[in-house]
Amino acid sequence: MQLPLHLKHRVGIIDLGSNSARLMVAQYQPGEAYRITHELSRRVRLSEGVGLDGGLRPASMDRAIDTIRMFRAFCDAQAITHTVPVATAAVRDATNRVEFLRRLQEATRLRFRVLTGEEEAYFGVLGAINGLGLPNGLVMDVGGGSAEVSRVRRSGFVQGQTTPLGALRLTEMFFESRDRAVKPAEIDRLKAHLAATWQGFPWLRLGLHEKFIGIGGTARALARIDREARNYPFGLLHGYELEMRRLDNLVERLSELPPDERARKVPGLQSDRSDIILAGAMVVAEAMRRAGADRLTVCGHGLREGLFFREFLRPADPPVIPKLREFSVFNLGRLYGYEAEHATQVTRLALSLFDQLSRRHGYGEEERDCLWAAGHLHDIGTLIDYYDHQKHSAYIILSAGLPGYSHREIALIAALCQNHRKGRPSLDHFKAVHQPNDLERLNRLAALLRLAEYLDRSQASAVASLKVGPAGRKTLQLSVRARAHANARVEIWEAQRNAELFEEAYGVKLALELA
Amino acid sequence: MQLPLHLKHRVGIIDLGSNSARLMVAQYQPGEAYRITHELSRRVRLSEGVGLDGGLRPASMDRAIDTIRMFRAFCDAQAITHTVPVATAAVRDATNRVEFLRRLQEATRLRFRVLTGEEEAYFGVLGAINGLGLPNGLVMDVGGGSAEVSRVRRSGFVQGQTTPLGALRLTEMFFESRDRAVKPAEIDRLKAHLAATWQGFPWLRLGLHEKFIGIGGTARALARIDREARNYPFGLLHGYELEMRRLDNLVERLSELPPDERARKVPGLQSDRSDIILAGAMVVAEAMRRAGADRLTVCGHGLREGLFFREFLRPADPPVIPKLREFSVFNLGRLYGYEAEHATQVTRLALSLFDQLSRRHGYGEEERDCLWAAGHLHDIGTLIDYYDHQKHSAYIILSAGLPGYSHREIALIAALCQNHRKGRPSLDHFKAVHQPNDLERLNRLAALLRLAEYLDRSQASAVASLKVGPAGRKTLQLSVRARAHANARVEIWEAQRNAELFEEAYGVKLALELA
Repeated sequence: MQLPLHLKHRVGIIDLGSNSARLMVAQYQPGEAYRITHELSRRVRLSEGVGLDGGLRPASMDRAIDTIRMFRAFCDAQAITHTVPVATAAVRDATNRVEFLRRLQEATRLRFRVLTGEEEAYFGVLGAINGLGLPNGLVMDVGGGSAEVSRVRRSGFVQGQTTPLGALRLTEMFFESRDRAVKPAEIDRLKAHLAATWQGFPWLRLGLHEKFIGIGGTARALARIDREARNYPFGLLHGYELEMRRLDNLVERLSELPPDERARKVPGLQSDRSDIILAGAMVVAEAMRRAGADRLTVCGHGLREGLFFREFLRPADPPVIPKLREFSVFNLGRLYGYEAEHATQVTRLALSLFDQLSRRHGYGEEERDCLWAAGHLHDIGTLIDYYDHQKHSAYIILSAGLPGYSHREIALIAALCQNHRKGRPSLDHFKAVHQPNDLERLNRLAALLRLAEYLDRSQASAVASLKVGPAGRKTLQLSVRARAHANARVEIWEAQRNAELFEEAYGVKLALELA
Repeated sequence: MQLPLHLKHRVGIIDLGSNSARLMVAQYQPGEAYRITHELSRRVRLSEGVGLDGGLRPASMDRAIDTIRMFRAFCDAQAITHTVPVATAAVRDATNRVEFLRRLQEATRLRFRVLTGEEEAYFGVLGAINGLGLPNGLVMDVGGGSAEVSRVRRSGFVQGQTTPLGALRLTEMFFESRDRAVKPAEIDRLKAHLAATWQGFPWLRLGLHEKFIGIGGTARALARIDREARNYPFGLLHGYELEMRRLDNLVERLSELPPDERARKVPGLQSDRSDIILAGAMVVAEAMRRAGADRLTVCGHGLREGLFFREFLRPADPPVIPKLREFSVFNLGRLYGYEAEHATQVTRLALSLFDQLSRRHGYGEEERDCLWAAGHLHDIGTLIDYYDHQKHSAYIILSAGLPGYSHREIALIAALCQNHRKGRPSLDHFKAVHQPNDLERLNRLAALLRLAEYLDRSQASAVASLKVGPAGRKTLQLSVRARAHANARVEIWEAQRNAELFEEAYGVKLALELA
């Protein structure tokens, strides 16, 4: 294996929100590759107890300052000189924000930029566009003090608006007590308030094939709960799909539990969010109802990632990754030190087989993209350990994800990598995401990848080209042309020895020969 | 995270045996860190069909030459200029070895060194000593054409001897047919032959606390089968323990199946070994009986690793890693780009707590070593993905292993890493290896690691020292001294917030204070 790409740049994105303060550290090579290396999060509840005077309370400000000071120490210890500190609704709306920002700067030597509601929405959407490759749809972020909703068209931010529908704020306004379940009347009042607010957004409508995206802590928390309830096979939140029907059930269930009991009784719910999760879920649900959405696609990227992508893609404007699927595969490959030459050769051979056999399998772009990804990533598990590296490749892909690919596709790519050398492909662990015929699809694609792998057994790119012969009744000829001065005898022998999966998947004997 | 250590050197170890030819590629920094990056293996069965004239058959030689040529192409493609090609019993014993070696060199430009039986045993033992930290015991390697057995004392090779008890050779000598089960009389004859041979080894006796180690393909194959039958929780073969009683049962089971059916009916058995595995298992079992061993400890390192260690540790002679446990932890840490400063600080704080609380937990060196390892490795999972990195750290440790630590200790270290931030520690997945009280042990150690982690929340090494106060009835005071000019307020706050596991594990309230 190669040494993973050295990522020279480091940036610390600091986001001081109404509920939490967060520091995200990323390492990157501009435009080429990146990874998140740290994320610190502390509940500061900056907007807690804001009264009629609209001023932040001293205790809240102290908590925030202590936390940011700790973030600053963290950045100093990591030699991170480039930071992007921003504050959102809680600070924006505070009457004493000037005094607070002055104290904050004195204590931390960080100059926070207070984002406008529009900017907050914009950067959140940037995170989503670069996280899901979203061409068209709506993006929603429910924070503690506000909720933003935005429209995306042709992978661009069209408009965004902030509303005061923050989960913490609404909880304080509508729900009285922590130690009993909310009253039906309270629910009804909040519902009416939400419906009335969303009524004022005529553009909050999904078109055909458009997605409703949730970013931020509320969406992630909802996904975490739903995932637990379904025994979901992935650890991945990014790209998770939560059905409207299940979200409604969750709202009902949460409303029946006193806030203090929720974390204990609802698996996946973190205790520091248990009191505000109900209001947050309702904001999302009512917006989805208004938009006519049947599912929420959860995006792990939000405001912080959006701010990061601006740094990462400078000077591009808008800062959008052009081909996200391709970028994600190369990003992962580079981070894990993949052997580019072997990976490229295996991919080339596998796709050559795929294209020449298109009438036999009948698959299209989607499957081709998955095979392409698996061809590039099949060996990345070597970084964990050479032994069982196929399994480790799958583990990395399932853990790190591939932005731009759906969970179903990611499961398929992981299974392809896991079976690139041996074994009988299976999707047993992925029942929650696969569709009818996906096992057949997997078998047929895995058969091609396996042949391609053995056709580069020496990793010397000995094979120049492949030609699938005319279809005989029972036997398919595969003619292998070697590069000049190269010896492909062993590759043919190894490919022939490992042709069983191919023969089963395509129902035909395979006969390899040297051209 | 840091960039993984760059491993500048590459070496290809080529081992032409009686049953298989293997190429192992390792990257390394001399004496400091290494990883295996490739292993190619092909069944060449070089000694197949060797007749009364003692000459290798032309077809066998051709298979071997084609394979080595492919290995050579592989090395060329990977720019590996340093190779160590050796041949063992099949070539050593062949009457036409001079002619074969000449042809081999002409075709591959590789000059093979034919190891003597003693050298073969020596390098195998080197692999085992550097793989298990073995101070005293016996090491056995059953190959296709021969079997070596050696004695180790004070981590040094004392003596070794080769015997013609190769699995392939014995199968051809004693078992007649492939398509029926072996006859009881055949088993008896082989048993008598083995017993008689081992009778001639008076030093084949285990002392108290000594281990019987199995290296090479036969031992690994036996472990693979046993592991499947037990539903073992690890993928790791290295360090696996196979009980004598279970080995005897396996011999019985194999002897009842025709060779052709074994691979299908015995999970974990690879088909290219299914005919010779019975003889191999019997060689091991009879040697263990003679030595008085109750279990076989399987070592994933053997001849090739031994040859590698000589290169890696040059000019040390004997080439033995002095403190294997320590080396393994730093090796893994460096390969995964661990943040040395934070890891060192967390380890230091955790061990300070461990030492000061020794009367409360009563643990000794073994537990301290595990806590030490977990302190250094708790964050290595960040390389896979920041999210869920605790889980990924555990996955890496369980997959890559830690030579010198037992499976039970490795499971404990992995569980410590997995729970260093949150969660309730569990050993549910590791029933096969844990012992009574291990859950309590885990809880008590995890509680210390977690406190230490939060006491370096800023990763700025803000805490200089810890002092456990005199034991109150219900509350334990922990006094935290900050480094000069450092602010440890947040670390104390975070540690206090995450003290629940500690309080449960030690049955006492914890009160942190700034000194």
